[in-house]
Amino acid sequence: MTASLAASPLATPPKPPLPALTRPLSPDELEAALRGFHSSYYVEHPFHRLMYEGRLTRRQFQGWVANRLAYQRVVPRKDGAILSNCPDPAVRREWLQRIVDHDGSRPGEGGIELWIRLGVALGVPREEMEDERHVLPTVRTICESYVWFCKSTPWVQACASSLTELFAPKIHAQRIESFPKHYPWIPEEGLAYFRSRLVQAPRDVQHGLRIVRQHCTTVDTQRQAFEALTFKIEMLWSLIDTIHNAYREE
Amino acid sequence: MTASLAASPLATPPKPPLPALTRPLSPDELEAALRGFHSSYYVEHPFHRLMYEGRLTRRQFQGWVANRLAYQRVVPRKDGAILSNCPDPAVRREWLQRIVDHDGSRPGEGGIELWIRLGVALGVPREEMEDERHVLPTVRTICESYVWFCKSTPWVQACASSLTELFAPKIHAQRIESFPKHYPWIPEEGLAYFRSRLVQAPRDVQHGLRIVRQHCTTVDTQRQAFEALTFKIEMLWSLIDTIHNAYREE
Repeated sequence: MTASLAASPLATPPKPPLPALTRPLSPDELEAALRGFHSSYYVEHPFHRLMYEGRLTRRQFQGWVANRLAYQRVVPRKDGAILSNCPDPAVRREWLQRIVDHDGSRPGEGGIELWIRLGVALGVPREEMEDERHVLPTVRTICESYVWFCKSTPWVQACASSLTELFAPKIHAQRIESFPKHYPWIPEEGLAYFRSRLVQAPRDVQHGLRIVRQHCTTVDTQRQAFEALTFKIEMLWSLIDTIHNAYREE
Repeated sequence: MTASLAASPLATPPKPPLPALTRPLSPDELEAALRGFHSSYYVEHPFHRLMYEGRLTRRQFQGWVANRLAYQRVVPRKDGAILSNCPDPAVRREWLQRIVDHDGSRPGEGGIELWIRLGVALGVPREEMEDERHVLPTVRTICESYVWFCKSTPWVQACASSLTELFAPKIHAQRIESFPKHYPWIPEEGLAYFRSRLVQAPRDVQHGLRIVRQHCTTVDTQRQAFEALTFKIEMLWSLIDTIHNAYREE
């Protein structure tokens, strides 16, 4: 009875390449190592491969868009948690823009509204998007974990967790390119969310990188930054994996 | 493009039967309604059906026991969170026993140690149990959500969430009966955890019920108790569902 699970490993997410950190990295080395986490980003998850190869069924697409709204909706809450832990007014003034981007300046604007319109474009009635009836409890827990993380983690590390945006422009560009090609039934206006993020994400990334480069100058704080980005990468992977499993077509 | 997901519903967990609560329930009615949540307990999850029908592979069994340790390990932490929010020394004195049950009074004792021994009995090396290398990120997040819930919820509601133990003796008895019958390769001593819970769980349930019956006497607090138990039921369902999906045999 000495069989080990190692003989038949699970499809656990690919581990990010954590550097050795035998000394503090320079800001440029730190940024390069953070960018190196790209290989573990969920763009490579099987569900996304199905998406970009045009192999998602309409039901899978709808399940994805309905569940993923739960994530869009926690983003301003996690940004509020970061604000609440940050003592620097200059950082807060700039970070605030992320909340405005998601919530809009008035009803009917902002990233959350654009995501709901994407859902409608994919055939999920607005009411069913808004009341979250299709959101899986596991997806809800995963999304809430991001808020909890940002509440309970020092603000610089919480900022570091947002650096998955380093890798997001590729995923948004893939969607803008592949949706019209493979899913001609999706109306053009459904892509507005991704177009808006192509502008916002690079600006957010520059701000996040400035914070992490400036504040994470010791082995301990750099390790914490890598751990925070690992948390976020695993969170996004868990999210898509849960949706993938719930909407399998077998 | 008006297709609704309602036409092809997901296998979301069965919703617990929340009573109408047009008036406060009597303590006996409250207890009966809480017991009525049994129909949504994860004993009915397909993974558990496979388990009790003798149809789990050794790898599935090992994946289950290795991941489930993460849950055993958060239990004393969530009980500490409840203690930290509870102002009543009498309640705290009694609640403390749960922490002792899981951690033991000295190394080598307690429910966590018995669970590790179950893992070893199922063929997972102790080292691989203890370092949690097989624990899925989603499982870790789900378990942590229980600690966060108990930290951030008033203590009476957090106590109510523990009332899934109302339904646990059946699951423990099923395991004690079905493991030797269907899985003769599991050594007898592997069942020690379940035998210990057959004694502890009914005592915990009596304490939890006393608290909820005494403190939840209004529509609002009763609704909160039902919501707390729903949270926990969905948490356990998410846990087994994630393990089930990760270790599918296809």
